[in-house]
Amino acid sequence: METILQGKATTVRIGPDLPAVLIGERINPTGKKTLAAALTACDLAPVKELAQTQVACGAAVLDVNVGAAGVDEVSLLPRAVAAVAETVDVPICVDTADPAALKAALAVCPGKPLVNSVTGERARMEAVLPLVAERGAAVIGLVMDDSGIPSTPASRLEAARRILARATELGIPREDVIFDPLVLTVGADAQAARVALETIRLLRQELDANVTCGASNVSFGMPDRPLLNQIFLAMALACGVNCPISDPSHFCDAILASDVLLGKDDYGMRYIHACRARAAR
Amino acid sequence: METILQGKATTVRIGPDLPAVLIGERINPTGKKTLAAALTACDLAPVKELAQTQVACGAAVLDVNVGAAGVDEVSLLPRAVAAVAETVDVPICVDTADPAALKAALAVCPGKPLVNSVTGERARMEAVLPLVAERGAAVIGLVMDDSGIPSTPASRLEAARRILARATELGIPREDVIFDPLVLTVGADAQAARVALETIRLLRQELDANVTCGASNVSFGMPDRPLLNQIFLAMALACGVNCPISDPSHFCDAILASDVLLGKDDYGMRYIHACRARAAR
Repeated sequence: METILQGKATTVRIGPDLPAVLIGERINPTGKKTLAAALTACDLAPVKELAQTQVACGAAVLDVNVGAAGVDEVSLLPRAVAAVAETVDVPICVDTADPAALKAALAVCPGKPLVNSVTGERARMEAVLPLVAERGAAVIGLVMDDSGIPSTPASRLEAARRILARATELGIPREDVIFDPLVLTVGADAQAARVALETIRLLRQELDANVTCGASNVSFGMPDRPLLNQIFLAMALACGVNCPISDPSHFCDAILASDVLLGKDDYGMRYIHACRARAAR
Repeated sequence: METILQGKATTVRIGPDLPAVLIGERINPTGKKTLAAALTACDLAPVKELAQTQVACGAAVLDVNVGAAGVDEVSLLPRAVAAVAETVDVPICVDTADPAALKAALAVCPGKPLVNSVTGERARMEAVLPLVAERGAAVIGLVMDDSGIPSTPASRLEAARRILARATELGIPREDVIFDPLVLTVGADAQAARVALETIRLLRQELDANVTCGASNVSFGMPDRPLLNQIFLAMALACGVNCPISDPSHFCDAILASDVLLGKDDYGMRYIHACRARAAR
C-alpha cells in the first residue's frame, strides 16, 4: 500500500518495498532555545535555513512545528509552512496540536501534505480528521486513545484500528493513514522499545500500513544516546518502519545503509553515492 | 529453549529471553597474515593474547580456528584449544572443517563446547554429528545442503530441519543445535541480507532455535563497512539472533545497546556499566 505525498515540485512515495523516506524533524523548537526565541519574534530565517540543510542531508519530507511558549500558532504556522514551501520543493508534514493552526496551515500548504498527528482520542479525531479529509491530505495516527498509551502491542493495534475506521468513514483512503507506534523511554520502562518494535510488526502485518517513528525518545537519560538511537532505528526499519522522522544530519547514512540491507537499494547505488558525496565534502 | 555451554570455570546460557551471548571471532587466521604466520610456526602466544583481549572486551564464548595454509590442524587445533582453556575460563567454540582435527580438539576441550560447524550435506552430517553426540557438545548448523546454499528463507529452513532431524536421531538434544542463517554479500546479491533476516525469523518462529550469525560478510566491497555491519547486526538481533559471532572490540557496545532495546537488560544496568567502564579507560 503506497502513500503519495506532494510538495511544491516533488512527489514522494512511501511503501513497504520502496526505499525509506526520511522525514526531517529539526523544524521544531522543543528543546532548542535559539529557534524558540526566533519564532517568538516571528523570525522565519532559521526555519528556511533548517529547510535547506535538511533537504541537502537527505530529508525527503519536512516536519514543520512552531509550538513554543509565546507563539501564536494560528498566525505563525501558516507563515512557517509558506516559508518552507518557498525555500524547498519537498512535501511538508504539518505538525501541531492546535486544529485552528492546522486548518490555517493546510490552506497555504502546496501539494498534498502530511498531518502530524491525530490520536484515537474521540475529541482529537473529530477535530483533526475532517480537516485532513477536506484537504485531501495524509495523516499520522499515534496509537493511543482516550485511556492513554496502551501498554501492549495488541492494544496499540486496536487504537490504530479505531483511527483507521473513523478516517475511512470520513472518506480518507486507507493508504493515507500512516501510523506511529509511540516510542517511550527505556530508562523508565525496560520493555518500552520492545513494545514499540512489536507494534511496528503488527501495524505492518495486520493493517499493511506505512509506519513512521522517531528514534530519539527511546534513549532519554541513558549514556551514549547516539548509539542507542542508531541501533533502535535499524531495528525499527527491519521491523517495518518506512518513513522514519529523524535528524537527517545524524541518521541519513544509517537509513541508506538499512535500505541496502533490506534489499531496497539495488547494488547499493544510493548508499555508495552518498558515501562518495560525504568523502568529497 | 536454552543452550547451555560450559568452559573451564564458567557456564553460559543462550536463550531467546536472555541477554545476547557474544562469540568472539578473532582467533581465526583468515585474512590475518601475522596470525597465520605464527600458527604456521606453531606459536600460540598470539592465540592466548587474543583470548584475553576478547574476554576483556565482552566475549562470553571464544571461537578457535587455526585453519591456514601449512598448518597441520589435527596437531595444532587441540594445542590451540588447550592454550585458550589455560588462559581464560569461557566456553570454546571449536571451529574447523576437518573432522579429525575436531575429534582431537574435542578430546582436550574442557566443559561443554560448541562445534562450528555442520551443514545439511549428507557426508558432513555423518562426519561431524556423531562426534558432537559422543562428546555431548552443542553444534552450529549452517543452513545449506548438498545442493548448496538455498536462495529462499523457506528452503534454508528446510536445510535446518534436515540437520535437526539427523542430530536428534543421533541423540543430540534439540536445544544443542544452534543455527546460522548464512549471510552472503549484498554487493553480489541485493537480497542477501534480507534473505538472511527472514531466515532468522523463521528459525526462531518455526524451530524455536537459538541463532548465531556473523555480521561482516554482508558488507564486502561496500564503502563504510563498519556502519553497514553495525546496522545489520542490530537488525539481526531484532529478528532473533541471540549469540552473534563477531569482533568484541567493535561490536560489544552495539550488542549491549540491543539488549537494552529488546528488554533484556533491566534498567540498562549492563549497558550503563559498560559505558562507564569505557569512559574510565
